[in-house]
Amino acid sequence: MSAPRSEPPQQVRIALGDRSYHIRIGAGLLDEAASWDALPPAAAALVVTNTTVAPLYLERLRAALTTRYRAVFDVVLPDGEEYKDWATLNRIFDALLSHGCDRKTVLFALGGGVVGDMAGFAAASYMRGVPFVQVPTTLLAQVDSSVGGKTAINHPLGKNMIGAFYQPARVVCDLDTLRTLPARELSAGLAEVIKYGPIADPAFLDWIEANIDALLAREPQALAHAVKRSCEIKAEVVGQDERESGLRAILNFGHTFGHAIEAGLGYGEWLHGEAVGCGMVMALRLSQRLGGVDAAFVQRVTALIARAGLPTVGPALGAERYLELMRVDKKAEAGEIRFVVIERPGQAAVRAAPDDQVREVLAESTR
Amino acid sequence: MSAPRSEPPQQVRIALGDRSYHIRIGAGLLDEAASWDALPPAAAALVVTNTTVAPLYLERLRAALTTRYRAVFDVVLPDGEEYKDWATLNRIFDALLSHGCDRKTVLFALGGGVVGDMAGFAAASYMRGVPFVQVPTTLLAQVDSSVGGKTAINHPLGKNMIGAFYQPARVVCDLDTLRTLPARELSAGLAEVIKYGPIADPAFLDWIEANIDALLAREPQALAHAVKRSCEIKAEVVGQDERESGLRAILNFGHTFGHAIEAGLGYGEWLHGEAVGCGMVMALRLSQRLGGVDAAFVQRVTALIARAGLPTVGPALGAERYLELMRVDKKAEAGEIRFVVIERPGQAAVRAAPDDQVREVLAESTR
Repeated sequence: MSAPRSEPPQQVRIALGDRSYHIRIGAGLLDEAASWDALPPAAAALVVTNTTVAPLYLERLRAALTTRYRAVFDVVLPDGEEYKDWATLNRIFDALLSHGCDRKTVLFALGGGVVGDMAGFAAASYMRGVPFVQVPTTLLAQVDSSVGGKTAINHPLGKNMIGAFYQPARVVCDLDTLRTLPARELSAGLAEVIKYGPIADPAFLDWIEANIDALLAREPQALAHAVKRSCEIKAEVVGQDERESGLRAILNFGHTFGHAIEAGLGYGEWLHGEAVGCGMVMALRLSQRLGGVDAAFVQRVTALIARAGLPTVGPALGAERYLELMRVDKKAEAGEIRFVVIERPGQAAVRAAPDDQVREVLAESTR
Repeated sequence: MSAPRSEPPQQVRIALGDRSYHIRIGAGLLDEAASWDALPPAAAALVVTNTTVAPLYLERLRAALTTRYRAVFDVVLPDGEEYKDWATLNRIFDALLSHGCDRKTVLFALGGGVVGDMAGFAAASYMRGVPFVQVPTTLLAQVDSSVGGKTAINHPLGKNMIGAFYQPARVVCDLDTLRTLPARELSAGLAEVIKYGPIADPAFLDWIEANIDALLAREPQALAHAVKRSCEIKAEVVGQDERESGLRAILNFGHTFGHAIEAGLGYGEWLHGEAVGCGMVMALRLSQRLGGVDAAFVQRVTALIARAGLPTVGPALGAERYLELMRVDKKAEAGEIRFVVIERPGQAAVRAAPDDQVREVLAESTR
């Protein structure tokens, strides 16, 4: 299936006391016994995946896990954000209970962010918590869901409104799985990679600029570095603020505007990463107005976002609609919109902004 | 509403690092501003209660909270274990989202164990966690739900299968609310009080025997001591084992048999405390067979359980049905039933037992 690897897997340790775990990153990891060693002992495993990923990778993962667990069950969910709801989550509980799974059963999330969110919340809640392992098969999930322990489902009145902070026992990022990823989703994942430059690491921003073509060509070495460095930066930030009370909010750079785009167009119209890419352009322009960065920096990051295949102009929802949507965002506090702004390249802060300046940014960033 | 108190409230501190909290125990606490001081600051509070408790205590709690929160919302759920499901839980999320509640909103659980379990799980899950306060209005909830952080809803295939370990910010036990409790529920609560004697504290067992009439007469001083000592013992056990990996299982004394009674008869036929009362008699007889306690001790505790108004003879489901039900219990591991047995008065252990001895116990304890 996969070409022989020349490189040993990379590893990032997420230090969270007795909930510490490792992210393993490399090509061909799915089939390697070493990827699954030393996981919590259990009689059974349940693989949660979806109808798109199952035909590609389910049997390979099952084969690898069968050497380790007496029984390997699976549940194949319909694919799509619109299924990230209670009814679909309940199919995981149905599977666990109908197979008589006990509280040591290990859940494996094989797929993108939606599968990871649902399998993670199911693991957090089943018998008040069973171990789970993330096996992300999209770039977005590899760089974003690997660290932070966020799990959730949607409610008809809001996205990700019901969930838990729950840490995996391990994350295994097999870069070979990115070969089957649609180009649009690769770009969406790159949005979250690019994000780490402006908020935390100018040198990484330089590296992404120099390697954007290799990333778009899915070269494993370039992908490995991008995933590893993204996870490292996120781990540094999350390690200082596991429950998202303060600093961690900088990871939402581009997300306040991005969520408004997603909600305004109807979820699923744009991919999350596309909305974040465009949202970063807006957040950069707001940062410039607030005196954080200069026009050259805004232009440079905007150009990189465009090269990654992401939109840089938002939909014309009207400024008042954007403001209304941002005021009901989960991160708003008592109706005040919180923006992540760049104070200088590599440093971000969370703050409010005058509505008029937000309106100006929206006027020049949408059509 | 309440008689003037001569006693200051009792307080038990639950030490759990940055999740430590206090249990306040006394008569008339509902109306006292001091009961609600120093809770996490928030714009809004949501009181979760049910159709039985709301007419009795909702307005009093609302009045007390209105001095502290700008907005006090409520959601009144149907009363009964059969509503401890996702659909009813979702009514709490609907209320939170339709009122635009942010992630600092404090949830108050006003009611018995079902309300506490659902409000607690809603608080654990809403935006991945908001603060919550338990205001238990049954004896069972005061001694059992106050400590341990267990929250859950039922699944059609099993009780309490979906939930979280989530600690309250405070527990306020107003003993006056026990005046409206039906006698059968008072007895059910006493089962969990009596439990702490055999597993942890022979002196407390002596005290309960000496004060059982005062407890049945709902004398506040006796109730205060019973609630306080029960919470202290549970806190000691839970403090050593927050996630229920080992020691904490001794709190399930009487529960393995009890759950089989509940499941075998259909949930709701016997109250949980009634099943636990009878289950303790069975567990004591099993302990005697395993050499832990003598016949006199079994007789003595059985007599106390009967004086508390609890059943001491189980329904005739048949031994094989009992065994089958106990094997699928959440606490079973790979199909092996785990019993809490008394090793000597005041000390319990979790262990397996030969099926034949269990059958003998069931034969003499059911009809």
